Order: sequence, then C-alpha cells, then structure tokens
Amino acid sequence: MPVAVRIVLVETSHPGNIGASARAMKTMGIDDLVLVSPKEFPCAEATARASGADDLLERARVVSSLNEAIVDCGFVVGASARLRSLPWPTVDPHTCARTVCERATGNIVAIVLGPEQSGLTNEDLGRCHQLVQIPANPDFSSLNLAMAVQILCYELRMAQDEAAVADADESGLHEAVLATGGELNGFHEHMEAVLSEVGFINADHPKQLKLRLRRIFHRARLDQTEINILRGMLKALDPRTQRENRKEE
Amino acid sequence: MPVAVRIVLVETSHPGNIGASARAMKTMGIDDLVLVSPKEFPCAEATARASGADDLLERARVVSSLNEAIVDCGFVVGASARLRSLPWPTVDPHTCARTVCERATGNIVAIVLGPEQSGLTNEDLGRCHQLVQIPANPDFSSLNLAMAVQILCYELRMAQDEAAVADADESGLHEAVLATGGELNGFHEHMEAVLSEVGFINADHPKQLKLRLRRIFHRARLDQTEINILRGMLKALDPRTQRENRKEE
Repeated sequence: MPVAVRIVLVETSHPGNIGASARAMKTMGIDDLVLVSPKEFPCAEATARASGADDLLERARVVSSLNEAIVDCGFVVGASARLRSLPWPTVDPHTCARTVCERATGNIVAIVLGPEQSGLTNEDLGRCHQLVQIPANPDFSSLNLAMAVQILCYELRMAQDEAAVADADESGLHEAVLATGGELNGFHEHMEAVLSEVGFINADHPKQLKLRLRRIFHRARLDQTEINILRGMLKALDPRTQRENRKEE
Repeated sequence: MPVAVRIVLVETSHPGNIGASARAMKTMGIDDLVLVSPKEFPCAEATARASGADDLLERARVVSSLNEAIVDCGFVVGASARLRSLPWPTVDPHTCARTVCERATGNIVAIVLGPEQSGLTNEDLGRCHQLVQIPANPDFSSLNLAMAVQILCYELRMAQDEAAVADADESGLHEAVLATGGELNGFHEHMEAVLSEVGFINADHPKQLKLRLRRIFHRARLDQTEINILRGMLKALDPRTQRENRKEE
C-alpha cells in the first residue's frame, strides 16, 4: 500500500523536469502531483520524459499558489538545498520519509520543491512544518530537480516497506488530526492581524518576526482542537473584541 | 572524505544517461566512472546532461569488457531490477551502501549497472559478489538508469555521513539555547495572567485549558530568543499595557 503523499513542484522552469519527476514518482508508487505556476505545462517534453508515467501528468493539478496546493495538508515538508540564516527544523531524506509515513495516517502530507535555480522562498518555507535536505558534495551540490524527487520518493518507499516504523519521535504519540495548511495559514493571518492592531508587528521588520512566529507554531504541530483554542485566545486578546465587550457592559 | 567507489556502466544505449549519471555521481562526491562499450561516447548530449560534471566524463575510462573494468576491484556489486531465476545474495541500496563502506577500506569497490533495456547478463552477474535491488512499484518499475545511479550514490553518501547524521535530527539542528524550565514557567504564568485579564481563562475549567497551552509550547521546544519574542507579544496584547499607552497619548 503506497503512502498517500503529494509532491508539489513550485514554479518549475523546465518541463522536462516535470516529466522526469512524474516518472520518478510512479516508479516508487506515488501518484499525486500538484504544479504551482509551472513555466510551461502541459508540454511535449514533459510527456516524453515521463516515459510511461503520462497518466500522472494528465491527473496533475495546476494551481496558482503554494497555499492552494497545500490547503488540505496536515503536514508539509519543504525541500531545501541551502543552509538558511534562520534555522528551521531540518532532517535528511531517510528521517523525513519515516516522519512522513507516521503523519500520513489520517492526514494528507505534501513534499514541496522550489524552482530549479532559486529553491523555495522564505515565504514558502514559512508554510512548511519541516525541511528536508538531501546531503550533497559541498563542491558540487547541483542536484537535478527530478533526481531530488527520485531520492525523496525512494526513501518513502523504503520507509513504507520497513516492518516497523520507529515511534521514537515523541510527537508520534500526538495522534489527533493535525491542522491543515489552510487552517494554519488562517490562524497565522489572524494572529498577525491582532498583533498589528496592538502595534507588536510594525512596518519596520514585519517579515522576520512573522516568520519566527510561524516557525514556532509549525514546530508545535498543532491539531485542530488546538487551532480552535488558539483562535479563541486571539479573539479574546484582540483589543477590538475588548472594546465591544466594554460597550455591551 | 568521499568513499572510493567506482561506478561501471555496461553497454549504455543513451549518451544522455551517461551525462546524467556523471552529474548524479558528482553531486554525491563520487568521481570514478568506467564505461564498458558505450553505444556512443564521447557525445554532446552526454556533456549537456552532465551539466557541470563534464570533468568526470573527461576522466571516464572506456573499456571493452566488464572484466577489464573490475580487474582491480576487491568487491563488486551488480544492480539488478529484475528477480532472477538463479537466487543471488540481494540487498537493498541502504544495506548495500553500508557493506560497500566497510569493504572500501583497502579495496576498490565497483557498482555495476547494465544496459537500459536488458540489465546485466547472467555472465556479468557471475562477476558480482552481491546484487543490489532498488525497491520499486511492481506495476511500473521503469527506473531510469541515471536515477538508479543517483539513488545508489545518495545511499553511499548517507552511509559515509552516518556518524554526523545520527545527531542531525531536528532538535540537533535547532542549535539555539533552549529555554529553561524556569523561563518556560515564567512565560506560561505571564500568558495565564494576560488570558485571565481578557477573560479567556475563567473559573470554570482553567486547569484543562492551561495544561493544553503548556503542552503546545512544550512541544515547540522554545529557545530563549523565542521566549523573549513571545513575552514581548504578551505584553503588547495585555489590555493593561494598552490602557497605559492610551493614557500616555
């Protein structure tokens, strides 16, 4: 039984890489492909490189934002080739695959890969619960996009074939239904609005602060009940709510 | 220090696959490539697909038999996509890489991949100490040759990095100084005070709610900077601060 994992390719430049990624996915039994604003798709080169995995291309969904691609996902992993100034929880593909297999029960899991040249933006990273970094030669780390997809999907297949999935991770015990990408984003936008209202987020350095807050709550892997609690808390803390309450009194 | 492993490609049909294999090898720090009777080499398509790994192609040795390619090797692994009628010791890429790393001390080790369509002949298999089989979707096992090279070389790199990887789990990379128990408690008492002030924590079920909030932030493994950010946020959200700010205005 293959793991239900979605591969999301963001702003892919070369259609050949989309085709080769589809082939790579299918060889490992993964078939949910979502393309965020591909430069050129559908495309004969993509179909040629898919080499028999054209059914995946036909079923691939094309969307216009990463948010749309992961709106129903409970766990989102971003592929990163670079070291980030702001450290983000980062694992290797082996560990990543085992975490994904754990999370994939009752949740849709997405693995997101950025454009060939630049990788994922910080804003996109802010939507990921975890980063996966494929180890590479520091003097030549130019791993092809479809090769990265192949390695990640290979590890997923290895993980699912493994008799026992390690339950060492403490959050493996945290079994509730995880909040989806859409719910998390809604919570963060709510929090950012309230924090702007009280002047905590200001025009000077809003991005870095927002990113840090997103990182904290992504690490916590919130479930749906928790999202509801936190949103209730934000509503109570919102000065606008307090003003209304005072009027009523 | 990369493992000294030789990749041997036997009678490769598509020069593009030779180039892509060279690139795959180089990304993982492996640079010894031997080609047994390639259909077309050197070739512009190979160079194009090598995409910066053309130094490997230039140094690649072309020989006319597998025997010649492995004559100096102490351990030879053959890649096999098919189940063989003749049972052969077969391992997965993960196990293979660890065996290869052990054997690579004082020995040259070769990993041999056959032609795209047919794979290694029984005669070639007879020259291998071990077979490695990459797990694949039984309904679509058409793994591209260079993708197979990528997976095998990735596992070799993982095996050699293993000591470092052991502690590269997500908490390992989160290197900032974690908040102490005292700091965490201070933060939670602060939050509880503010939430009581706005009426979010009330006398009905305070314990359950407080516990849930503590659980969320403990899971996030906050560091000291983050605690400071969150306490700043609480101060800004506190209605008492807002009242004071209004007085000052």
